[in-house]
Amino acid sequence: SASTTFWVLRLLPRNVRSLATSSGNQRVEACHQHHEAYGYFLLIQTRWQDNDQYGRGNSAVYYSYLDTMINPYPMRYCGLKTGLLMSPMVGFIVTNQCTFHSPVGFPQIAVAVLVMEKVGHSSVHYRLALFPPTPTKEPPSIDLRHLSDGFFFGHPKLAQFATLACTTGSSVHVFVNPAISKPVGLPEDFRWGFLWLMSPAPV
Amino acid sequence: SASTTFWVLRLLPRNVRSLATSSGNQRVEACHQHHEAYGYFLLIQTRWQDNDQYGRGNSAVYYSYLDTMINPYPMRYCGLKTGLLMSPMVGFIVTNQCTFHSPVGFPQIAVAVLVMEKVGHSSVHYRLALFPPTPTKEPPSIDLRHLSDGFFFGHPKLAQFATLACTTGSSVHVFVNPAISKPVGLPEDFRWGFLWLMSPAPV
Amino acid sequence: SASTTFWVLRLLPRNVRSLATSSGNQRVEACHQHHEAYGYFLLIQTRWQDNDQYGRGNSAVYYSYLDTMINPYPMRYCGLKTGLLMSPMVGFIVTNQCTFHSPVGFPQIAVAVLVMEKVGHSSVHYRLALFPPTPTKEPPSIDLRHLSDGFFFGHPKLAQFATLACTTGSSVHVFVNPAISKPVGLPEDFRWGFLWLMSPAPV
Amino acid sequence: SASTTFWVLRLLPRNVRSLATSSGNQRVEACHQHHEAYGYFLLIQTRWQDNDQYGRGNSAVYYSYLDTMINPYPMRYCGLKTGLLMSPMVGFIVTNQCTFHSPVGFPQIAVAVLVMEKVGHSSVHYRLALFPPTPTKEPPSIDLRHLSDGFFFGHPKLAQFATLACTTGSSVHVFVNPAISKPVGLPEDFRWGFLWLMSPAPV
Repeated sequence: SASTTFWVLRLLPRNVRSLATSSGNQRVEACHQHHEAYGYFLLIQTRWQDNDQYGRGNSAVYYSYLDTMINPYPMRYCGLKTGLLMSPMVGFIVTNQCTFHSPVGFPQIAVAVLVMEKVGHSSVHYRLALFPPTPTKEPPSIDLRHLSDGFFFGHPKLAQFATLACTTGSSVHVFVNPAISKPVGLPEDFRWGFLWLMSPAPV
Repeated sequence: SASTTFWVLRLLPRNVRSLATSSGNQRVEACHQHHEAYGYFLLIQTRWQDNDQYGRGNSAVYYSYLDTMINPYPMRYCGLKTGLLMSPMVGFIVTNQCTFHSPVGFPQIAVAVLVMEKVGHSSVHYRLALFPPTPTKEPPSIDLRHLSDGFFFGHPKLAQFATLACTTGSSVHVFVNPAISKPVGLPEDFRWGFLWLMSPAPV
Repeated sequence: SASTTFWVLRLLPRNVRSLATSSGNQRVEACHQHHEAYGYFLLIQTRWQDNDQYGRGNSAVYYSYLDTMINPYPMRYCGLKTGLLMSPMVGFIVTNQCTFHSPVGFPQIAVAVLVMEKVGHSSVHYRLALFPPTPTKEPPSIDLRHLSDGFFFGHPKLAQFATLACTTGSSVHVFVNPAISKPVGLPEDFRWGFLWLMSPAPV
Repeated sequence: SASTTFWVLRLLPRNVRSLATSSGNQRVEACHQHHEAYGYFLLIQTRWQDNDQYGRGNSAVYYSYLDTMINPYPMRYCGLKTGLLMSPMVGFIVTNQCTFHSPVGFPQIAVAVLVMEKVGHSSVHYRLALFPPTPTKEPPSIDLRHLSDGFFFGHPKLAQFATLACTTGSSVHVFVNPAISKPVGLPEDFRWGFLWLMSPAPV
């Protein structure tokens, strides 16, 4: 069941485990499992259909959580327009990856988190994670807009979530002019918005 | 775009419109578009992937919103277990239908609503709807658990949602013993939990 | 499991069953469960993620099967363009409904079927169904394009599917100019394309 | 539009490109883009809902294609049971990643491909890819079962697909006893089935 906390990764032999982590560097990977490594946070409401026939959140669904979290920040804070009919640039994913440390699934409320690793001319590198709820604490009051606009590092509601990530990952986006399918240099408001999210705490 | 409020149903000729509504009775259908006709409410966070290539919430996704809303009430208030390995009965959908009055989509926060129309021996009839947010109001504080456990009629946060539903629908569930695939009579705690949600206001 | 053939609808008491069917007319509903009532057919490949934690195809996923089947006919045979940047008209769903007679799920191959009930000025009424595979027969050769373009009544590969539908449903679409959000009269090639699919056999 | 063949990866500066590839080794990555590097093949039928509001296949959906392709091989050839009520072991994903070279989307028919990189005591490492169709060739006859059971290297229908992959990726699965949540050693039929799919051609 989704509420049992078992650690798939811990179950593996050490040599497989280090292959499974993207860097092969256990120390760096361990840092990426903590809140402090991230700057932007969005609550994620799971759905009945997210669980597959093993009764756990399906791995492809985790990528749709992260997709849902990546868009609100540039939409809300950098002026990204996502309607094709009115958008001079859109972000396409070039590569992404996740490592699944423990399961999350319906009906849990999780928090997806993001930090920028690199802001290039027309592309950005994100580091991402998902944290499960801490079941024993009292649920706090939140703003409805935390569900659509997200919130930032240091917010008290982070106390409601586990201190270790259940999923860690990364993603590279390139920004493209959809009319001519060519990459475009990031406008200044995008560049500053993304730079503002560079590692808020030493990782 | 998902934020334009246009009414597909209103666009139709009157004779098509009455065919489109399940009852053919405009007066009854109109009642089903108001908060007062429902007793149980669950916030719904939309996802990037919910919008299809027309930039609007896909109709099949609306059914997954309603599915997500139907399960928490019996899980939280009637003792429904959804894990196959430990559940003596599960609910299967026999029939469902929706009418789409106006679009909802990412990144909006909607509220899905439910009322019981009939509680039978081993089956229940739900009436369902989805209300879009009212964009101009200040977002209120909510409990994190309103995202997983829902809330009930009369809650002040309903003021944050439109007074007319964007989607109305219905669903029939039958409860079945998964080991032998036969319907089971509803236990008393389920029966009372469902009866408690029978029409909270005269419809 | 998805391969057990049990009939949810048959499990219900007779009075619930007749409520569950959209028409309340068992004779008409029975006709809609046969191949002969339909003219256009598209194979549907199920996916791992289609099954929910009850190990069966999720009902919201059935609507995405039908959505997938509704678009290829006008795209291939009536000239529908689905790209927003180049399309003068797109089809929006006004209402849809399904009744689930028996389960289908991964890894089965099903066939989705369609017939027109009414072709209006700017809207069309579809009747739809889904047929499960007949497990004992030898799988025949098919054209790769039957997966994207579909095929028509009378094709020998229909012998590979059950004679009774596992799901029956209906849908109403209205065609709209996406730039101004107003319904548009169906062009002649759409009108003739849709009329060609009116009830191929007496229902 | 999904049918334009543009190469997101090629658009990036060379230094970003090498970061984007999992290995940093362009020569190895280039090998993984060819049919010859894979042994097991499954046709993938795209769906209307796979395209997001940019009109292209959504990246999270690609992971559900690969998930759909990973299961039939052990189900059909190694005896994997996926029903929780009857399965002594199930495969959980520990980590996965994809690089997106060019888009695929509805209504295209793609082919998902697989080769084993490593078969361990209780875990396996897959290398995966997705190839788009070659639009100009005549569609060949296929067996209906190629949609559910897949086929193997050397099959003539591979000529219907592009020679360069649009997506390349990898995945690690660990096999676990679902009742006690502990990894289990692969039974002999699984081990031999997986070993049979080790690199069929020198990569």
